[in-house]
Amino acid sequence: MRNILIIGAGRSSSSLIKYLLDKSEKENLQVIIGDISLENAQQKINNHKNGVAISLDVFNSDQRIDAIKNANVVISMLPARFHIEVAKDCVTYSKHMVTASYVSQEMKALDTSVKEKGLVFMNEIGLDPGVDHMSAMQIIDRIRDNGADMLLFESFCGGLVAPESDDNLWNYKFTWNPRNVVLAGQGGAAMFIQEGTYKYIPYHKLFRRTEFLKINGSGNFEAYANRDSLKYRNIYGLDNIPTMYRGTIRKIGFSRAWNVFVQLGMTDDTYTIEDSKNMTYRDFTNLFLAYSPTDSVELKFRSYLKIDQDDIMWEKFLELNIFDASKKVELQNATPAQILQKILSDKWTLQQHDKDMIVMHHKFGYNYQGENKQLESSMIINGDDQTYTAMAKTVGLPVAMAALKILNGEIKTPGVQLPISKEVYEPILKELEEYGIIFVEKEVPYLGYNPDNVIG
Amino acid sequence: MRNILIIGAGRSSSSLIKYLLDKSEKENLQVIIGDISLENAQQKINNHKNGVAISLDVFNSDQRIDAIKNANVVISMLPARFHIEVAKDCVTYSKHMVTASYVSQEMKALDTSVKEKGLVFMNEIGLDPGVDHMSAMQIIDRIRDNGADMLLFESFCGGLVAPESDDNLWNYKFTWNPRNVVLAGQGGAAMFIQEGTYKYIPYHKLFRRTEFLKINGSGNFEAYANRDSLKYRNIYGLDNIPTMYRGTIRKIGFSRAWNVFVQLGMTDDTYTIEDSKNMTYRDFTNLFLAYSPTDSVELKFRSYLKIDQDDIMWEKFLELNIFDASKKVELQNATPAQILQKILSDKWTLQQHDKDMIVMHHKFGYNYQGENKQLESSMIINGDDQTYTAMAKTVGLPVAMAALKILNGEIKTPGVQLPISKEVYEPILKELEEYGIIFVEKEVPYLGYNPDNVIG
Repeated sequence: MRNILIIGAGRSSSSLIKYLLDKSEKENLQVIIGDISLENAQQKINNHKNGVAISLDVFNSDQRIDAIKNANVVISMLPARFHIEVAKDCVTYSKHMVTASYVSQEMKALDTSVKEKGLVFMNEIGLDPGVDHMSAMQIIDRIRDNGADMLLFESFCGGLVAPESDDNLWNYKFTWNPRNVVLAGQGGAAMFIQEGTYKYIPYHKLFRRTEFLKINGSGNFEAYANRDSLKYRNIYGLDNIPTMYRGTIRKIGFSRAWNVFVQLGMTDDTYTIEDSKNMTYRDFTNLFLAYSPTDSVELKFRSYLKIDQDDIMWEKFLELNIFDASKKVELQNATPAQILQKILSDKWTLQQHDKDMIVMHHKFGYNYQGENKQLESSMIINGDDQTYTAMAKTVGLPVAMAALKILNGEIKTPGVQLPISKEVYEPILKELEEYGIIFVEKEVPYLGYNPDNVIG
Repeated sequence: MRNILIIGAGRSSSSLIKYLLDKSEKENLQVIIGDISLENAQQKINNHKNGVAISLDVFNSDQRIDAIKNANVVISMLPARFHIEVAKDCVTYSKHMVTASYVSQEMKALDTSVKEKGLVFMNEIGLDPGVDHMSAMQIIDRIRDNGADMLLFESFCGGLVAPESDDNLWNYKFTWNPRNVVLAGQGGAAMFIQEGTYKYIPYHKLFRRTEFLKINGSGNFEAYANRDSLKYRNIYGLDNIPTMYRGTIRKIGFSRAWNVFVQLGMTDDTYTIEDSKNMTYRDFTNLFLAYSPTDSVELKFRSYLKIDQDDIMWEKFLELNIFDASKKVELQNATPAQILQKILSDKWTLQQHDKDMIVMHHKFGYNYQGENKQLESSMIINGDDQTYTAMAKTVGLPVAMAALKILNGEIKTPGVQLPISKEVYEPILKELEEYGIIFVEKEVPYLGYNPDNVIG
């Protein structure tokens, strides 16, 4: 038996664990799940004979080291900041490691020791980062291998609600960490490059500078820019590419309405509101509007945000009950962002029967033998249910596949790495197709931002 | 001879030093000026027989302690973060201390030892904080001593350019630290309370939520809200006051135009621009606008910011040359805020003949024997020249007067304190009048925000 240790049995690990347990007989695997809650780990194993649940507090170094010593490969599904202690032990005891998180500076610093021991530390192999890296690099490598020059790379991803569960005016529900949705885009200007020109968008303009996306067979979407698209130039070996943009996908109209919360200051997480507990939703909304002894909160809201009388956006706010004078916030000393999250959760929490959906879309512009061409590649997948969500599948399956392929020596180049080499992306993308994670490619006319090479 | 040590001989200390040297004969003072630049200190003394210039590096503890030991009272005009080492030495060697800065937590922590030694550590005794505290508390105390209840306190202050030097479309020049002007309002939402309702304004709306101010005999101004007006409730003993607001004064139209820089993201100081050095002003402006192969930067700017063809605001941007394709930024790895400051400095730097102006305005609403009343109090002062600016006078004179009155035992209550007691503000406000710093009071109808007590 070969031991795979999975640390952290949260919602995102259901597909990961199922994949490994399903393969356990044939692959001679024992799947050990360590979680702070033993019950949680046991639930995920569901009495499978090749599964073992253990209670594991990652801050207890004895527990942690015991568990790691006993494994052949370690998967950490903990929040990113907790990986490093696990990683150090994996170096000490010569164990491979897999995570779905961005490579931290501390993790990167282990590269030399990881290589010396011939280990593979595979990171950023979930959905985004993960499937995006692999699906992009496969096409970028193919374009370059053909002798063409990359002109443009744009990449979009979004966690949405599946069409059959899409039943509110925002066309959105929380399919992932709600806090991250409320804080999305904060912490600095969004940066990217278009036709060789750097562009910077401050947070308070982010949701009004969206792009529209037409995805073949799935309709129209919009996207707002991610924080730092510039760093991907180096990661993908596209240092001189004139256009590089990454964005987050939403259904059309979401961003324009979300911008209203940003403009009001309701997404601010830096200060707490006095006496927030006893405040009504209406009181909360009124905090961000000018004082008036007579005007209604509704009128002040419309006037301040310039929402026309016949603007459908207005209905979106009514749907969220933000003018309700009977609903209480019920959160003590909460920040505006925490209160907004609570208000949204009333309406945007996935119900038992709801399914989620992941949309990923890439655009590749390139010059081949003097001609500008464009290729688009899209992937859409729906969740099966509330356990095997699209998010759990797209995050967990590549992690599981990478762990098994490392164990089997199919992925063997040592070092702290991302899934951007053929050795990694070819077999994993191929296997993901069996699970419905399929990219559809389409040649389109070169659009870019300046298709006619106009000199401005 | 009694020794007064002044640490830091920057621009703001000219009036302070002149006051003390002028009084030195009569008051038997020796004025010792310690600065990192001996030349700078010597210049300020200008061969006055009771002045001594010394080279003083505040981080050199031997130098610092020697100078402090030799003094009877120590004035620190250093940046606020450098006061604490001086303060600790003043405790050790039993010296009084005066600063124009906000009381830090570290400074506050010295209160017990300062009291034990019978010392006076007077802080926040410049202009704002300083003259604002004193002029407000004098009237608040008078109103309360009469048995009236405070309903409203609003306080406004601005460093502007004097009318005779007001020759640009923004009606503004840098009369103080330009960096602080560019970054003004950042770092958190503005908070205040109006008629018992808390109000929070995010940075990106701050310059569109201004109030107009009519100051008797001096015309109309506007003000945007300061960061935290709420803390003044406690400082002034007005914990239950329904309206408390503090703001920064500008000439009308400034904030609406400044808001354009905020909207664009040009005031951001959190990231640096790639290759900023070789960029033109026009390139810089274009960083914040959408890419277009054909549209001009001017048209994109107007369209994005919704600036009508006949809006006078447009001329303000032309005046600053932000569309100029020949002027170079010439700053390496600069933040947007640093570049904006450079661009503004081309036009907003005070010229040799220019004079500055300080405007301060308070509103006091109160209920006296069942009737709502309002009192306004204003102070306007112009600079004499580029050395004895209005800013140098209003910051330096109260500091100098406090130091001398402490030395003479007129101000004697020990402790780390603010100038909010009668012992301090009465004699200082009286003496400030001799120097033209005069508040004019006026009774007006009670305006408040809800003068008719409408129930909304």
